[in-house]
Amino acid sequence: MKRYEALATDIEASIRAGVLRPGDRLPSVRHSCESRGISASTVFQAYYLLEARGLVRARERSGYYVSEGARKRPPEPDFASQPRDESVAVDVSELVFEVLEAGMARDMVAFGSAFPSPLLFPLARLGQAVAASAQALDPRSTVDDLTPGNAALRRQIARRYLADGMQVHTDEIIITNGALEALNLCLAAVTRPGDSVVVESPTFYAALQALERMGLQAIEVPTHPREGIDLAALEHAIARHSPKACWLMTTFQNPLGSLMPEAKKQALVELLARHGVPLIEDDVYAELYFGDKRPLPAKAFDREGLVLHCSSFSKCLAPGYRIGWAAPGRFARAVARQKLTTTLGASAPVQSALATYLERGGFDKHLRRLRHTLAAQQVHFIEAVGEHFPPGTRATRPAGGYFLWVELPPGVDALRLHQQALQQGISVAPGPIFSAARGFSNCLRLNYGHAWNARSEQAVATLGRLASAG
Amino acid sequence: MKRYEALATDIEASIRAGVLRPGDRLPSVRHSCESRGISASTVFQAYYLLEARGLVRARERSGYYVSEGARKRPPEPDFASQPRDESVAVDVSELVFEVLEAGMARDMVAFGSAFPSPLLFPLARLGQAVAASAQALDPRSTVDDLTPGNAALRRQIARRYLADGMQVHTDEIIITNGALEALNLCLAAVTRPGDSVVVESPTFYAALQALERMGLQAIEVPTHPREGIDLAALEHAIARHSPKACWLMTTFQNPLGSLMPEAKKQALVELLARHGVPLIEDDVYAELYFGDKRPLPAKAFDREGLVLHCSSFSKCLAPGYRIGWAAPGRFARAVARQKLTTTLGASAPVQSALATYLERGGFDKHLRRLRHTLAAQQVHFIEAVGEHFPPGTRATRPAGGYFLWVELPPGVDALRLHQQALQQGISVAPGPIFSAARGFSNCLRLNYGHAWNARSEQAVATLGRLASAG
Repeated sequence: MKRYEALATDIEASIRAGVLRPGDRLPSVRHSCESRGISASTVFQAYYLLEARGLVRARERSGYYVSEGARKRPPEPDFASQPRDESVAVDVSELVFEVLEAGMARDMVAFGSAFPSPLLFPLARLGQAVAASAQALDPRSTVDDLTPGNAALRRQIARRYLADGMQVHTDEIIITNGALEALNLCLAAVTRPGDSVVVESPTFYAALQALERMGLQAIEVPTHPREGIDLAALEHAIARHSPKACWLMTTFQNPLGSLMPEAKKQALVELLARHGVPLIEDDVYAELYFGDKRPLPAKAFDREGLVLHCSSFSKCLAPGYRIGWAAPGRFARAVARQKLTTTLGASAPVQSALATYLERGGFDKHLRRLRHTLAAQQVHFIEAVGEHFPPGTRATRPAGGYFLWVELPPGVDALRLHQQALQQGISVAPGPIFSAARGFSNCLRLNYGHAWNARSEQAVATLGRLASAG
Repeated sequence: MKRYEALATDIEASIRAGVLRPGDRLPSVRHSCESRGISASTVFQAYYLLEARGLVRARERSGYYVSEGARKRPPEPDFASQPRDESVAVDVSELVFEVLEAGMARDMVAFGSAFPSPLLFPLARLGQAVAASAQALDPRSTVDDLTPGNAALRRQIARRYLADGMQVHTDEIIITNGALEALNLCLAAVTRPGDSVVVESPTFYAALQALERMGLQAIEVPTHPREGIDLAALEHAIARHSPKACWLMTTFQNPLGSLMPEAKKQALVELLARHGVPLIEDDVYAELYFGDKRPLPAKAFDREGLVLHCSSFSKCLAPGYRIGWAAPGRFARAVARQKLTTTLGASAPVQSALATYLERGGFDKHLRRLRHTLAAQQVHFIEAVGEHFPPGTRATRPAGGYFLWVELPPGVDALRLHQQALQQGISVAPGPIFSAARGFSNCLRLNYGHAWNARSEQAVATLGRLASAG
């Protein structure tokens, strides 16, 4: 346990034991430094962690205080989904577009958005890297940085894999226009129209749209809101439907926020290897963990080259830059060829700029700040849901990312709630867009990636009122 | 006729009449200014034009001279291709990749390349625009500039259409990752697997790769090396095969360089409108014209919204930036949705940078210089082909772009020549990669978009020797 964690654990124990009570001020930073012989930054890290756990609140220019009466938190959803054991054609894209387009007005409270606040990212420093590298751009890079992509950037990505204990060779990495392109190229590389593909239930709607566009069938497999896809059900689905691929998010799944434990990821990889089924692993939220370290992806356990790992900088560093990548294992050549015949390459100056930014350092510092912010915003959001939503509501407590999955009491119609909320200037992502079967009719995905303020609190209250009336 | 053209015509007449002979020095610029009462830039334009026509040569620090003995030029190919009247499955992508990958080494003489020299582009000024706009990037643009794209850039593109006399509304324009993505999205929007699509014979290999990847059939229609696709044959193919789309390059077709006259483009649009067949118009070379003005695309004659016009900045301004667009007429919504589910958007800082560059001005000045350079390089290349290639060789004289199409005598095997040339450090694009039927076995596409020098001349001589021996 690190020193800041030890301090946080001590203080948490004092709160739980009633030594420190709601409204009490925590020791000043200077006092803690002196009494424990630790640095101010260690004390701050401990207080941040306690804030992220909802136990203390900062008051401007006055210090940290034990939270006023722990607000009621809703219970977590506790059962895996129960989709029908079928391989079905997908026809949900139109609904997804209707829902997303309706929520896109700029002045909405954007709980339905797929993006965190752009203000959370170091756009100024990135801009400096763009400026520096665009003016020094080697003309030959306009051809050389086409697929598989800028060598320096691919090396930086390989180094990050290495820092997490993974051996992914630079040559395997293909730069793409965001993770979405990487996922689509991987899917195209391992399937043909008419094939079946396993997805989680619920799943990211873009996976469903990809299946629909490419004439693929969906097999929705039971998924637990904390621990991810059910492996027994997956094995059964493989035996019954012979899928040609799985498209899964093993870490902070969208929309559930579930995180497969590492042992379960390893078991997943072994199961798929036994059946020779490729895994397209969408890992875009992994850097947004609230715990000690980046959860390893399934890719870390792959010995067969069957895991096509996809990620990007869009959620953790550079939204709108549209730079992602695939590390597609034994399918690297096929994926590169898909890319060459569809979009040819990613933008040379932007690739070069991200390589420059990563070389200069500062990414990890930015990430620490980002994780803290998101963790703190999650606490506010969950507590507001606990306070304002009707009894019987359940909400996940993801260990990373920026989505809550909320199960409203049975009978609440999320699509109707979505319509009503729009009238009040609030967007939500209703459950049915996350399922080929249009299930999860009483569920919402809510985005806590925007600054928490009185307007957010009021919007949650409005949603709660609408849900109670529905 | 403009003043510089009048001067050029006068001088050309003097050369043809023998008043000025090979080796003679042209009047100095100052002398011509004074004697005609015109500006130095007008005189330079006239001399540039004469140089582009191969009639004069500049000698460094010494002026312009009538070219030494007009070098022999090969005749132009004069007959439309004769593909078989069939709709066929495409299986040529592997061959295309083999050929392209073999020619990619950096030290090759890149006659087989699809790209002009990156040194022809204002990368420094673009870099300044990138720097300025990246540092001033509105954080909201990271979401707002996703599909359909940056509003300022789309407005600039709409203004260029307007300057050419075309009404294309900003709302119709969708920014893409280069023209290749635009073309692919348009194709996906108007076809389903198993459909037939008309292409020219020969056609751009990327069109064939797109058909193959999407499970579409190709109908190759006779195409004339000067005037483009044969409309009677096209009408016959439509009646017989009921294609769901045409994918054509009406201006400076790749690989032929053919330019459909405007009246023929209009007839094409009317023909397709009668049959309700969408036209995907690949127009990426239009700005590289050597004549007076930009040839209008077929899109200019479209009244039904059936023309999906695709272009980019990759060939005329910003290679490697990967910014193109589609103006897909009545299919705009369908194309935007294809984009949203495949790559989501183009890079925000790059879109913003190109808008900034276009607003600042200088694009047209750059284009004038680029056209002049390419026209002059074409002359050198054609003359070298005339000198070194075996008797019976024919070569096109495109009025724009940077590709020559060379028909070698029957019996010369272009694929073998390609292999032999690689051994000598020279890449070429052999005819069979431009045809689903792998025809054009004695043809080459040669790129004259790189600086002409002794090494180029020698490489053409080497190719000629190989072709003569074959």
